[in-house]
Amino acid sequence: MKKIIIAIDSFKGCLTSMEAGRAAEAGVHAACPECETILVPVSDGGEGMQDVLIGATGGRQIPVRAHSPLMEMLETYYGISGDGLTAFIEMASISGLPLVPEGKRNPMKTTTYGTGELIKDALERGCRNFIIGIGGSATNDAGLGMLQALGFRFYDKSGVELGTASPLCGGLLSEVFAIDRTFAHPALAESQFTVACDVRNPFCGPTGAAHAFARQKGADEEMIARLDASMRHLAEVIHHRTGRDILQIPGTGAAGGMGGGLLAFLNAELKPGIQLLLDTLHFSDIIRDADLILTGEGKADRQTLMGKVPSGILNEAVKQQIPVILLSGSIEDEKELNGAGFLGVFSITPSPVSLQRAMEPAYARENIKRTVEQICRMINWGERHGQSSR
Amino acid sequence: MKKIIIAIDSFKGCLTSMEAGRAAEAGVHAACPECETILVPVSDGGEGMQDVLIGATGGRQIPVRAHSPLMEMLETYYGISGDGLTAFIEMASISGLPLVPEGKRNPMKTTTYGTGELIKDALERGCRNFIIGIGGSATNDAGLGMLQALGFRFYDKSGVELGTASPLCGGLLSEVFAIDRTFAHPALAESQFTVACDVRNPFCGPTGAAHAFARQKGADEEMIARLDASMRHLAEVIHHRTGRDILQIPGTGAAGGMGGGLLAFLNAELKPGIQLLLDTLHFSDIIRDADLILTGEGKADRQTLMGKVPSGILNEAVKQQIPVILLSGSIEDEKELNGAGFLGVFSITPSPVSLQRAMEPAYARENIKRTVEQICRMINWGERHGQSSR
Repeated sequence: MKKIIIAIDSFKGCLTSMEAGRAAEAGVHAACPECETILVPVSDGGEGMQDVLIGATGGRQIPVRAHSPLMEMLETYYGISGDGLTAFIEMASISGLPLVPEGKRNPMKTTTYGTGELIKDALERGCRNFIIGIGGSATNDAGLGMLQALGFRFYDKSGVELGTASPLCGGLLSEVFAIDRTFAHPALAESQFTVACDVRNPFCGPTGAAHAFARQKGADEEMIARLDASMRHLAEVIHHRTGRDILQIPGTGAAGGMGGGLLAFLNAELKPGIQLLLDTLHFSDIIRDADLILTGEGKADRQTLMGKVPSGILNEAVKQQIPVILLSGSIEDEKELNGAGFLGVFSITPSPVSLQRAMEPAYARENIKRTVEQICRMINWGERHGQSSR
Repeated sequence: MKKIIIAIDSFKGCLTSMEAGRAAEAGVHAACPECETILVPVSDGGEGMQDVLIGATGGRQIPVRAHSPLMEMLETYYGISGDGLTAFIEMASISGLPLVPEGKRNPMKTTTYGTGELIKDALERGCRNFIIGIGGSATNDAGLGMLQALGFRFYDKSGVELGTASPLCGGLLSEVFAIDRTFAHPALAESQFTVACDVRNPFCGPTGAAHAFARQKGADEEMIARLDASMRHLAEVIHHRTGRDILQIPGTGAAGGMGGGLLAFLNAELKPGIQLLLDTLHFSDIIRDADLILTGEGKADRQTLMGKVPSGILNEAVKQQIPVILLSGSIEDEKELNGAGFLGVFSITPSPVSLQRAMEPAYARENIKRTVEQICRMINWGERHGQSSR
């Protein structure tokens, strides 16, 4: 082997993608000192993708003050790429569930206004490409709070502007009857939005935003029913006002309808997080001529195949017929994983240990290194044996 | 790969050597359906070696009644090879520590008489080769009880025969002044004894039989001192009567001096258990032309290199330049293990689990199969890659 790509997801609560990758790299070099390794930090649109993209594009963090889901002012940041054109925004960083104390979680009242403020800040700094991660939100406002921060105006059926006292939130959706984009930020017209979206839930209905996600955001049964009805109403308003029918589009229910709001009003493209990341990183160029790809994640099982980091990497690798090895702290369903195309599936766990011990970072790094070294020794021997037995 | 040898030690308390081997075989065939596998059950002279040898030689178990360490009659068995010439005897099966209730353990009183009875039975059935495992004994009688059962007679300094009321035991060693083999079983003269002995303790002294092993057999400090002095005395008697100085010979302290007794009076050869087993199985012939050997044990670490099954197998493999892969439920010290020559060292543990869970037989089998399958997939790919990149 001459060239190995290492692109391992973070081991959540244990190692970052970079730390896991460096450990694997050490294992490769222990077995194959001459082998070129290319380390590609990756993440799947949850925590960490923003920083991975900032790092990969030579970008920087932009500190900013903006409003939390309950409209408190908070310090947060987003990212801008090295060329200054692309903003990387994770809505969770300002509209995330952890920002709302448990007792105050209520998707009728929370708003994505803060995410809109981050977008606005980036627009004013000249960004025209937006990559937005929408996992982990505290909201069910269909992104209307965000749009309001960007200058959109919403009116009830009497023509009274909504959200003037406090911004648009889940509880106001049912009152929206008209939407005015006259005062929307002018740079939006020349901006591209891409949304990292790993769920395929529709805007409303039994698997829609409210039924699927509102409970964990603090809604009770009655609120869920009201939110779902409001979402259906809003979809009709959107259809009527924009001509766009978002009801059946998968992913529009993501993050309390944020997917739908971004798609309907900002013409956003929804992409699986890992696909968006790999496209942004030009992963298919990076892996050209590689002999092997090492990927991994904390826990691997059939869920891995549902759009997680390793399966996104596998998809790219298959196109170029490059084998992929999957490493994990915990392996299940290896038949399905091999069947899906992973050449090898290996646990890094060296012995029966507690989860706590397994997640000690130094121990996990050592385990990744050891496992990768042993795997490379196997392949090396296979190569020599294959050559000698021709 | 065309031919793979599978020779895995038992995973103690979990899988027999055969069970572990069959699981590995299933893993090989899942990855390489065409590959020939040869399953060689192995064991290191502790529990299981006898049965492995009986199986490997097409032999049979011989049920027999004989005396326990405290001279109770017990049912037990030993083995005879298919050709009827070789007996396989584990002293633990009749002189073992588990046969003495904890409250009664006392190496001053216990005897190897029963082991002598088993040898005698085999002599009378025509066996002239003896392979004797001497682990796990309850005794510290230097094998004199065994010799007495075979017709040896022991006298004190007044010429009074010892052990007529109850047989020779640790407490009588100090009185032995003369040894008479006139009435020893006549077939002994034409018999060969080989002893599986994995310790190198001398007959007496600080690392001798008494100091190293008598405590676990129930001795207190005073008894240990007395036993050690008795062993030194006995060694002098042996030297004086046979011309043989066993004091400095490693292994003569094994099993309460059983190693020394067998060596001094029956001219036994002491061999590491795994070496004896591999010689008996003609392992070096079996592995000829193999591409790879899979070995393993429940727990692998630097101790593995101190004469355990996998290191014995590695030694044989190295002579024929066949790579060996080590599988284990628990891996430590992999640097030393690779350095000693193991091509690959792999844990079968798929995730953080309790020891109890890890030792469930069905789970352990599945884990062995999975790990072997993944390893073979690596090697297979390496072979194809090596061939295509020539």
